[in-house]
Amino acid sequence: MTRIKLKTETVVLAADLAGTLVFAIEGALSAMRSNLDLLGVMVISFIAALGGGVIRDLLIGATPPNAIRDWRYPVLTFCAGILTFVFHSTFQALPPMLILVLDAAGLALFAVAGVEKATQFGIRPFVAMLMGTVTGVGGGVVRDILLARVPAVLQVDIYATAAFFGAFVVVVGRRFGLSPGAAALVGGIACFSLRVVAATHGWHLPRADG
Amino acid sequence: MTRIKLKTETVVLAADLAGTLVFAIEGALSAMRSNLDLLGVMVISFIAALGGGVIRDLLIGATPPNAIRDWRYPVLTFCAGILTFVFHSTFQALPPMLILVLDAAGLALFAVAGVEKATQFGIRPFVAMLMGTVTGVGGGVVRDILLARVPAVLQVDIYATAAFFGAFVVVVGRRFGLSPGAAALVGGIACFSLRVVAATHGWHLPRADG
Amino acid sequence: MTRIKLKTETVVLAADLAGTLVFAIEGALSAMRSNLDLLGVMVISFIAALGGGVIRDLLIGATPPNAIRDWRYPVLTFCAGILTFVFHSTFQALPPMLILVLDAAGLALFAVAGVEKATQFGIRPFVAMLMGTVTGVGGGVVRDILLARVPAVLQVDIYATAAFFGAFVVVVGRRFGLSPGAAALVGGIACFSLRVVAATHGWHLPRADG
Repeated sequence: MTRIKLKTETVVLAADLAGTLVFAIEGALSAMRSNLDLLGVMVISFIAALGGGVIRDLLIGATPPNAIRDWRYPVLTFCAGILTFVFHSTFQALPPMLILVLDAAGLALFAVAGVEKATQFGIRPFVAMLMGTVTGVGGGVVRDILLARVPAVLQVDIYATAAFFGAFVVVVGRRFGLSPGAAALVGGIACFSLRVVAATHGWHLPRADG
Repeated sequence: MTRIKLKTETVVLAADLAGTLVFAIEGALSAMRSNLDLLGVMVISFIAALGGGVIRDLLIGATPPNAIRDWRYPVLTFCAGILTFVFHSTFQALPPMLILVLDAAGLALFAVAGVEKATQFGIRPFVAMLMGTVTGVGGGVVRDILLARVPAVLQVDIYATAAFFGAFVVVVGRRFGLSPGAAALVGGIACFSLRVVAATHGWHLPRADG
Repeated sequence: MTRIKLKTETVVLAADLAGTLVFAIEGALSAMRSNLDLLGVMVISFIAALGGGVIRDLLIGATPPNAIRDWRYPVLTFCAGILTFVFHSTFQALPPMLILVLDAAGLALFAVAGVEKATQFGIRPFVAMLMGTVTGVGGGVVRDILLARVPAVLQVDIYATAAFFGAFVVVVGRRFGLSPGAAALVGGIACFSLRVVAATHGWHLPRADG
């Protein structure tokens, strides 16, 4: 039993670090397109990967945020920034479909983890769903603010919507008696699937027309 | 006595919800002019209405912020965003004078509520005035940052100045022995009047010239 | 002994207020180049000088932040904003070398103070270095966000790098047994020297090329 539990924790930690890594590399590539220097690339890696969790932790009162408390997270993102800076032609040559799938997996993971943590801190269900969404998309929003752009998530695609949908499924799953682990799994699959299907089929939310 | 107190609380809650609604609709209209999608409009509604209070609560250490703790506030702003999105031609046809008056009322309400809450949390008078100002204008500032614009409040008009003036009157009124309710009322009227008079008369602060 | 301690505290407070003043004046000059009104100039003065410390305090859970708790800091920055607004031709005529030296001194002071405070709040060494860096450069980042610019610190020069280097020296100095005061002094000199030498010699970090 203990052995299995240890394994579960290892899987969760590994998944969390993997999601952080994906978001950090994407952030670094985005920063390099904006012609930043090495330090700028490292900072954007950090913020794109960990900014959503930091905002969530500040809002629910979980200070210092996890990304500050545990040195492995900032170190991982800085290393990702440096590696992306050095090997950017390799990263830029990755197939877009692979990046989409990895990014959707990271989004699902962050959204589910966000709703879990908010619930643990006594946040009520609807707002916990919002916190899951913030965890998933907050880093990208701050990244875009720093790059002086309107955040992409406000303009295009089913992205934040997928994060919110995953968080919604987690909460509903628990209401209907699923175990936390099962609810997280179903919610993550829901977020991932909606994101990938929406992106490959070109689904959009309605837009305000001029 | 209890009955009267209940009524007062109902009035305060109704006023707070009304102010939130006005700011949310204005935020949604602003987001639609920037061509965001439905989700973007809902997010900007939320932030324009509740961002000032969230910043205040983070700064004075009142976490989780009210806008996160009480699900009615986010739900109200999201509904306002959706309604504005659907019926935007109706909202855009509202007379500018009506919007000015409603907005000034919302500003006065938020500024007064902000100085009250900061004072309750032991913040000293001058900084409490700043917190009142932040409550009134912070949402608009974050909205403009997300829309990649220099915040309007830094550039034009007597707006933050009116919020600060109202908060100042609240603090001074209390010093001179007014009851909290009376001080809030006088401060709110001061903020509202200065804002409306300044806007209709084209008053401006001096500006740096190139 | 008490007398000497009092003197040390006075020196630290004076240095902190001097650093705040330098950053506030620089912020005001930057705001005036963006054509803001008087209030906008005052707000940018406040944020440029105190924003880094506020972000640090929010992240390490030290609420309310010092800049909010102690009214002298906001009052100082607002006065600096007003004075710069009125006498801006005088300030703009200051020799660039003087501004560089004062700014580097302010940066060194903030970086060292930031790492000290984070350490006091139980933050571990590597993240404490990041908090020192944030204290030094955070105000400038928020200033640039409000002025709808990509933060200068992400794009040019050895600036955040100097702050991080100073914070790094503080932590290493303590590990090797220096007293807190001596470590702070050596770290501050390291940050100041690297910043001034890098600026006068045109040192840059490598940049992503298009």
